[in-house]
Amino acid sequence: MRYENISPHEIEARSFEIISGELESAGITLDEKTASVTKRCIHASADLDYASTLYFSEGAVDIMKELIRNGAYIVTDTNMALAGINRKRVESFGGRVLCFMASEDVASEAEERGVTRAAVSMEKAAGLDRDVIFAIGNAPTALIRLYEMMEEKIFTPKFIIGVPVGFVNVVRSKELILGSGVPCIVNRGRKGGSSIAAAICNAVLYEMGCVK
Amino acid sequence: MRYENISPHEIEARSFEIISGELESAGITLDEKTASVTKRCIHASADLDYASTLYFSEGAVDIMKELIRNGAYIVTDTNMALAGINRKRVESFGGRVLCFMASEDVASEAEERGVTRAAVSMEKAAGLDRDVIFAIGNAPTALIRLYEMMEEKIFTPKFIIGVPVGFVNVVRSKELILGSGVPCIVNRGRKGGSSIAAAICNAVLYEMGCVK
Repeated sequence: MRYENISPHEIEARSFEIISGELESAGITLDEKTASVTKRCIHASADLDYASTLYFSEGAVDIMKELIRNGAYIVTDTNMALAGINRKRVESFGGRVLCFMASEDVASEAEERGVTRAAVSMEKAAGLDRDVIFAIGNAPTALIRLYEMMEEKIFTPKFIIGVPVGFVNVVRSKELILGSGVPCIVNRGRKGGSSIAAAICNAVLYEMGCVK
Repeated sequence: MRYENISPHEIEARSFEIISGELESAGITLDEKTASVTKRCIHASADLDYASTLYFSEGAVDIMKELIRNGAYIVTDTNMALAGINRKRVESFGGRVLCFMASEDVASEAEERGVTRAAVSMEKAAGLDRDVIFAIGNAPTALIRLYEMMEEKIFTPKFIIGVPVGFVNVVRSKELILGSGVPCIVNRGRKGGSSIAAAICNAVLYEMGCVK
């Protein structure tokens, strides 16, 4: 047989079995409260490093669940992350998943001020009349702007998923969030991405089930 | 200074400078014809491994450019990859970027036949009255179905980007495509993802410029 014959409904469960087995073989024991998030990040990346690089602030998963349950919005910094998050589940709790990166007003304001669209998007999200979970998988400048708004005492985010990927300011922007005291899930180092931001949101959503 | 102060327009160029520098330090020389694709995959993942795991069939980048120039469609296996590909550039050549994964007819047919939606999506794409570049960043079953259609002599894809990520059948499905003789870009091993599928498409599109 050239490949494993497996029914469509069993593929995901089989993937998680393999992940659990490999973590065990590597002598890694995950924290029970955060294991499903970590495993879903590994599932999305095929990279076991997430078991050691993901940081969860105290009670992070429970805080995120509570926010979603109360209808918080999730704001992403890419349309890819937006497309990857299970929107129906978020909406079943009264929330929404939003991304302002492609808005023309964001683009023109960013150009005018000489800042990134991601930074302007964060300001726009900060002005929403709702609690917001920031799911940042791409732009360090989004995290930097959130940090600056905290320092300027303009705005304090309720929750930050800080998982940009890349080479310029990525590591440092994550460290700023880690030290900010805001409830967060951050992947230390250079790795992350839109698919990781989506995986974190979905792992929490799947643990919560669906109200409708 | 807590982070590098860099203008929005320079961030990407700076990222690619860092990538080039690190490849040089690691003693890795990329093939000139495929370097921009490889570097954009590294940019999207912060993972230098792509320099050694990406496989390009003979003349792959030129073949892909020619297809796009002639209005080929790009069909993805996730809405995340769809969201990540520069649609305007594809459309400027008369092509489109499509994903059938969320189509209700695909879901119901997959359920009925006990196969994945990805497999049914591939059949639907094979029936399009256009040349198609298959950009597969998630589902091994998409690659397996494409391979089966070739074996059954029903359909031969013009081009396959084979970069699913994960643990079940991922490595084997990529090997099937590598051995099929179809022009392709494949990332060997477990890694890949929607962001890598999009990065490959965008790297080629950015090299081509824009007709409009």
